[in-house]
Amino acid sequence: MGTRTEYDTFGPLEVPEERLWGAQTQRSIQNFKIGGPSERMPEPVVRAFGVLKGAAAKVNMELAGLDPKVGNAIVQAASDVAEGKLSDDFPLVVWQTGSGTQSNMNANEVIANRAIQILGGKLGDKSVVHPNDHVNKGQSSNDTFPTVMHIAGVTEIHERLLPGLKHLHGALDAKAKEFDHIIKIGRTHTQDATPLTLGQEFSGYATQVEYSIARVEAALPRLCMLAQGGTAVGTGLNAKKGFAEQVAATVASDTGLPFVTAPNKFEALAAHDAVVEMHGALNTIAVSLMKVANDVRFLGSGPRCGLGELSLPENEPGSSIMPGKVNPTQCEAMTMVCAQVMGNHVATTVGGSNGHFELNVFKPMMIRNLLHSTRLLGDACVSFTDNCVAGIVANEKRIAQLLHESLMLVTALNNHIGYDKAAAIAKKAHKEGTTLKAAALALGHCSDEQFDQWVRPEDMIAPK
Amino acid sequence: MGTRTEYDTFGPLEVPEERLWGAQTQRSIQNFKIGGPSERMPEPVVRAFGVLKGAAAKVNMELAGLDPKVGNAIVQAASDVAEGKLSDDFPLVVWQTGSGTQSNMNANEVIANRAIQILGGKLGDKSVVHPNDHVNKGQSSNDTFPTVMHIAGVTEIHERLLPGLKHLHGALDAKAKEFDHIIKIGRTHTQDATPLTLGQEFSGYATQVEYSIARVEAALPRLCMLAQGGTAVGTGLNAKKGFAEQVAATVASDTGLPFVTAPNKFEALAAHDAVVEMHGALNTIAVSLMKVANDVRFLGSGPRCGLGELSLPENEPGSSIMPGKVNPTQCEAMTMVCAQVMGNHVATTVGGSNGHFELNVFKPMMIRNLLHSTRLLGDACVSFTDNCVAGIVANEKRIAQLLHESLMLVTALNNHIGYDKAAAIAKKAHKEGTTLKAAALALGHCSDEQFDQWVRPEDMIAPK
Amino acid sequence: MGTRTEYDTFGPLEVPEERLWGAQTQRSIQNFKIGGPSERMPEPVVRAFGVLKGAAAKVNMELAGLDPKVGNAIVQAASDVAEGKLSDDFPLVVWQTGSGTQSNMNANEVIANRAIQILGGKLGDKSVVHPNDHVNKGQSSNDTFPTVMHIAGVTEIHERLLPGLKHLHGALDAKAKEFDHIIKIGRTHTQDATPLTLGQEFSGYATQVEYSIARVEAALPRLCMLAQGGTAVGTGLNAKKGFAEQVAATVASDTGLPFVTAPNKFEALAAHDAVVEMHGALNTIAVSLMKVANDVRFLGSGPRCGLGELSLPENEPGSSIMPGKVNPTQCEAMTMVCAQVMGNHVATTVGGSNGHFELNVFKPMMIRNLLHSTRLLGDACVSFTDNCVAGIVANEKRIAQLLHESLMLVTALNNHIGYDKAAAIAKKAHKEGTTLKAAALALGHCSDEQFDQWVRPEDMIAPK
Amino acid sequence: MGTRTEYDTFGPLEVPEERLWGAQTQRSIQNFKIGGPSERMPEPVVRAFGVLKGAAAKVNMELAGLDPKVGNAIVQAASDVAEGKLSDDFPLVVWQTGSGTQSNMNANEVIANRAIQILGGKLGDKSVVHPNDHVNKGQSSNDTFPTVMHIAGVTEIHERLLPGLKHLHGALDAKAKEFDHIIKIGRTHTQDATPLTLGQEFSGYATQVEYSIARVEAALPRLCMLAQGGTAVGTGLNAKKGFAEQVAATVASDTGLPFVTAPNKFEALAAHDAVVEMHGALNTIAVSLMKVANDVRFLGSGPRCGLGELSLPENEPGSSIMPGKVNPTQCEAMTMVCAQVMGNHVATTVGGSNGHFELNVFKPMMIRNLLHSTRLLGDACVSFTDNCVAGIVANEKRIAQLLHESLMLVTALNNHIGYDKAAAIAKKAHKEGTTLKAAALALGHCSDEQFDQWVRPEDMIAPK
Repeated sequence: MGTRTEYDTFGPLEVPEERLWGAQTQRSIQNFKIGGPSERMPEPVVRAFGVLKGAAAKVNMELAGLDPKVGNAIVQAASDVAEGKLSDDFPLVVWQTGSGTQSNMNANEVIANRAIQILGGKLGDKSVVHPNDHVNKGQSSNDTFPTVMHIAGVTEIHERLLPGLKHLHGALDAKAKEFDHIIKIGRTHTQDATPLTLGQEFSGYATQVEYSIARVEAALPRLCMLAQGGTAVGTGLNAKKGFAEQVAATVASDTGLPFVTAPNKFEALAAHDAVVEMHGALNTIAVSLMKVANDVRFLGSGPRCGLGELSLPENEPGSSIMPGKVNPTQCEAMTMVCAQVMGNHVATTVGGSNGHFELNVFKPMMIRNLLHSTRLLGDACVSFTDNCVAGIVANEKRIAQLLHESLMLVTALNNHIGYDKAAAIAKKAHKEGTTLKAAALALGHCSDEQFDQWVRPEDMIAPK
Repeated sequence: MGTRTEYDTFGPLEVPEERLWGAQTQRSIQNFKIGGPSERMPEPVVRAFGVLKGAAAKVNMELAGLDPKVGNAIVQAASDVAEGKLSDDFPLVVWQTGSGTQSNMNANEVIANRAIQILGGKLGDKSVVHPNDHVNKGQSSNDTFPTVMHIAGVTEIHERLLPGLKHLHGALDAKAKEFDHIIKIGRTHTQDATPLTLGQEFSGYATQVEYSIARVEAALPRLCMLAQGGTAVGTGLNAKKGFAEQVAATVASDTGLPFVTAPNKFEALAAHDAVVEMHGALNTIAVSLMKVANDVRFLGSGPRCGLGELSLPENEPGSSIMPGKVNPTQCEAMTMVCAQVMGNHVATTVGGSNGHFELNVFKPMMIRNLLHSTRLLGDACVSFTDNCVAGIVANEKRIAQLLHESLMLVTALNNHIGYDKAAAIAKKAHKEGTTLKAAALALGHCSDEQFDQWVRPEDMIAPK
Repeated sequence: MGTRTEYDTFGPLEVPEERLWGAQTQRSIQNFKIGGPSERMPEPVVRAFGVLKGAAAKVNMELAGLDPKVGNAIVQAASDVAEGKLSDDFPLVVWQTGSGTQSNMNANEVIANRAIQILGGKLGDKSVVHPNDHVNKGQSSNDTFPTVMHIAGVTEIHERLLPGLKHLHGALDAKAKEFDHIIKIGRTHTQDATPLTLGQEFSGYATQVEYSIARVEAALPRLCMLAQGGTAVGTGLNAKKGFAEQVAATVASDTGLPFVTAPNKFEALAAHDAVVEMHGALNTIAVSLMKVANDVRFLGSGPRCGLGELSLPENEPGSSIMPGKVNPTQCEAMTMVCAQVMGNHVATTVGGSNGHFELNVFKPMMIRNLLHSTRLLGDACVSFTDNCVAGIVANEKRIAQLLHESLMLVTALNNHIGYDKAAAIAKKAHKEGTTLKAAALALGHCSDEQFDQWVRPEDMIAPK
Repeated sequence: MGTRTEYDTFGPLEVPEERLWGAQTQRSIQNFKIGGPSERMPEPVVRAFGVLKGAAAKVNMELAGLDPKVGNAIVQAASDVAEGKLSDDFPLVVWQTGSGTQSNMNANEVIANRAIQILGGKLGDKSVVHPNDHVNKGQSSNDTFPTVMHIAGVTEIHERLLPGLKHLHGALDAKAKEFDHIIKIGRTHTQDATPLTLGQEFSGYATQVEYSIARVEAALPRLCMLAQGGTAVGTGLNAKKGFAEQVAATVASDTGLPFVTAPNKFEALAAHDAVVEMHGALNTIAVSLMKVANDVRFLGSGPRCGLGELSLPENEPGSSIMPGKVNPTQCEAMTMVCAQVMGNHVATTVGGSNGHFELNVFKPMMIRNLLHSTRLLGDACVSFTDNCVAGIVANEKRIAQLLHESLMLVTALNNHIGYDKAAAIAKKAHKEGTTLKAAALALGHCSDEQFDQWVRPEDMIAPK
């Protein structure tokens, strides 16, 4: 493959002929050989750069005298980036400069060269379109990268996470209704407890996911604030008055998402607390989904030597050695995702806490983790819903059998004979392996009729 | 010291004569020798039990036929607990049963015995006031303990954390205004950057704390939901209809805090996502305060070989070997607190994710961490404000000296001569150790007058 | 209570008459009101100061001309601290200066005043014994505090953690042997799998604890390295040649533990990687014990609606509402401890990563967490062993019943008829609710005799 | 692209004609759409499957009567996998079944089909080579996957991490020697302290990396234990006696790494504590490297308004807006990597703690994180060494200037005039902005000659 020569302030550098990036991108490739292709800057960040650079060019034409010929070419080139058409021209890994400057320059260089193409110029001819003076006009990596972090994060949350959560919520809620009539033994401390309906149990799961959505929404306002307009250190040097507000408005309009300009640009460059906060919501969601998936697999444990209350869909052979084995694999994928999200949260936290002065330089790592967690949770919700939750069947026979063996139905006697006598009944039945009623009658704490009247699972599933 | 005999369903047990606790508390003391006195259930939990048990007795008198003589004695005894008068009677450690049952029984036993005293009975005489049948009436540990977690958490947040944050915000905001006129060098990547005012820098810190308050408030609604009324597994078995709502209303009224009954009690017992969520807010606050405290100590580093832009209050000798040394000790206490909060957050997360079926049994550990983090952050904010922030003085001379040496003032030339020529000037000045102006003139990129007109720090601190 | 006046280089200060501390301790009390009494510097740190200061005085008499009268009084006073007799004179909280200087001065002041008492002088009369010039001679907080961290950590590990782990290992190993003959169903993915003995299952737990001990021992060498002799920045300024080596030897001799002087003192002051490393071992132990305790509670779940293979000791009433309920409370305490240790590990990690230049200033927080985790794990191991593991009983009847219902015995057929046919048998039996043998015969894949000969659980628990 | 039909026990399925995988792999593709291509099972796991499956075939030919024609074809096919020639045939993501069964079957299917090709058969014709009965002979996913985890982990540690650490250690050690003569101001609490040499400072960093290597080596023995031979639940059912030992020996011989068979297979399947332990070592390394990289960037801060003691290599333009700016980008990449490793450690910890009964089902997630962290740290060490450490230059002039301004040289007076008088000198000089000597003489605490004799930086960098 041939090369062409590109320049930056450090001098000339050969870049692959067929690629649109320039010298600074090439320099980063050479200086940061960390982790390989799977560590590239996430695609949503690349696309968000397209969104932002297009918006900035529009505003620069209006406010800052950017030549419309150049500006419109930039808008068109940026649109290609936003649509993912040029993603192969973004080869840089996350593990670069902590400001994301190299990815910002990657975007500037690709958009400049693409605009040069559009204008019929020669790749790398900065006199036609300059990556810094035109594409990056009125901007700094220090405000574009955090802006792009927020655009990418909010977009992914809206397009992937929230739909996934809603999909799962719908399925759990439907199961809660479907199972509303099935009374089962409750379990606390993993031990037999008083009854509830399987529908009630699933309503708890559905509520967890309902609150998951609320948690994301509670954190969104601060993630919708854009740093753009702060330029190098938050002051807005070299940007025009109004640039910040108009870029935010343009991005909001172009994406249909409620972005606003950040009220304080110093905070927006130097700290990424909004990312940490949102990841805190994801961490809480991971906690919730870990619980749900764990319950589902334990309630579905068996088929003969477990709890066996639920049958989960059988999607694939479960074992390479045990023929016929079927496993709760969707629960496993989900819980692995949850563990990963908890870990990603700590990485984000550590990065967030280590900003200095006017800039936090853990930006690429932080957004990588936010996007990773968002993607994994969103995808896992859909997979878990479609391949597991939707197909869960209640084993009503097994459920009924366990219910009637439970000793904790004795709790219904508290209000009639008091805690201490009820305890004596349960202990006697447990020790002697008898039914509760037999023990109650033997101890003389109630009559046969009283027992039947007082100890009725269907009367034990709500306050009176 | 003498003992008296107390009973539970496991049999008799000797308890210290002068203590109000009963057999189950004593049993826990003997079975859980983990960690020593500093590991006791936090005082806010104990007090919250007082709040809750009093409210429950009031509602039980109204709804459930609790004998007013007994009920009123319980209310009075519970009030003693709520006021902290009986805290010495709560000896149990956090590391007990994961439902907090033993602490619930500790509360039931102490309140029962205190009520017996009030009624002139004999300690331990359950026929007068029964810990389970009277004090715990219509309740289970499984709903009281999560209720108490929320009461304690919300109370501490209101009484300690939010006031601490507001105190710190006020001080930072005042400094932002006080330092509004002081133009200084900015620093990005820890390297010299374009200027801003010291007031702008502090406005970033103030904004972080302002958002800290918003984050706590965004998470509060779910922490204000009370589990009470779910009893053993969330169904409300043995509680009266309306008990849940009236207890929540009574607690709200007694505390002046906006508690409501949890819409779904299954979620409220089986998961403590609201605690994880709130700790996520605390984690974000820790991230914010770590940044602020780090900046303050670096800006205050010196006195002669550091950045030296700020003078911090000198509160104590800093070294046992270096005479006259003064250290940024308040920053250090704050950052240690922040690290602890990040760790506590992970403990809370792990606990929250490990609930099973109808109950999460990491309750005492989870609330311990929420309260620990709340207390530490609240106290540290006050200490940091009063002993550090309030007394920060700007070293204006030093600040001015650094500002005028900076090469990054060259950025002001971008809009006039372009990025590439500006870069050449900066590089030349850096390499040759000259001023920017000298380099600019030598390169012929502008005239003396143009330089003076274009490169003015006071024009570089806002968009134009 | 009366006061007396003490002095430091900041001036005079009133301290409680009956306390031995001096002005710098008092100043810290006033400047760091964070967290209350339960946040005091852990007792093992206080005692380790006694060990160290005594050793330093001995060496100073020999090497540095310390007056034997003063030196011997210091040795005696330090011995009182090491034995815990003066612990009430150490009121400072963890959340102080990050070098632990204030606790070092607390030790210097208390030992100086106690030595003054011994010598018949007047409290606070530094001309008799000076906290800095005599007690702290040749030392800095910057080397004493990390030394004390290591002394306290290693001591607690030897006295509390390793004995606890060994105690637990012994009990698990004994159970592995006791249960060696009991064949049971295995469970993978929480689903029925091929059989193993209950003894084999417990041998896995015992092995985890055996490796826990190995992990601690693998990390100990670096925790046994003492920073003493580095003084202020690692150079050893103001200490005598040989001081480092002789103090380490004296501490080793006085404690009977294998302490050595750290080969590189710059690392020993500026980083506490050895603490992070050891906490990594504790974190791994927490992971192991979480697994063991979870298994025990699930295998002991029931009594009638769970797995029910084990009966755990019944130590206390398990529920305030469900009479007769018994819960796996020791497992719960253990798993809560494990979650806390995982959180403490992150706090330690964050602190360890944030050192700057010649000093890490997260020292008190880091050692607090190491000691907290060590104590909790050590105590919890003993509690879990004595109150749970030692009393575990196998429910052999239930175990046998589950074993013979399992479909995964089909795996024994792989080597005879191949995976695919074996799978068909298992699937048929599962679908139709029959025995494996019935399905095998119906499909004609083997004869009755072959089945009985091939499918024998007792032949399935080892390679052949 | 065409397809062909493959079968598993769930029935037929179309797979891409040109790919070697079979029905179970295809099923996993369809059921686990989580995260996209960058989430694929890491390449080192794929290669390790090649290593393992070849070794197993060799042993199976010897011990278990595997037809040599089939066996040798498997050996050859496995070798292709081990060399990475067939990596495109491993499309599965990490987020699948938690046992890694699907990736084990992916390996079995690809190797079977490749062996069929070698033998001239038709792809998918299991009568020639069967994925389960031949390739997976005597194996289960439950022992192959943990075996592969350890092979992949140990290999990457040997090939990537340890070389990277040694490379960095060499460079730091060389700098420590190069800078041995340069005396500089020390800094504790970020404040001026007593002097040391720049070489001593770098020796601390070198020691941290030296211990990093020791930490990895201390954890390696348990990661070198292979689970192979445990089959489904640890008993070794369906494997031959000696299979475990011979496979381990073959793998050791084929890789040249010290693998042994795990003494207890139950632990080896049910827990991955060895992975958690090793990640604990990586976490400690991250802590160490975070400190080193932070120091380097702060010591190199400037060029004119920071500490400025070091000049770091200038590798690329640092800012898209500030011309001529150069940033410590390698430090930033390194510290981002360190934060990620800390997060990955928590994910690994959570996964490790959540095993149940005979199997931990967080296997793919755990090994993903171990490999991710290993790769990032190894690569970052090389990048940081070559692009930063190796080119660090000391600014001796600046260092000397700061040294002589420092007030902490006063510490040298302690042994001559006592701490209190020395403190008075330092405070006076600080307050009045004078030199120490001027203050000392003014206070009359020493003579001009004494001062010059006592306060000599070159005498302050070692004990006497």
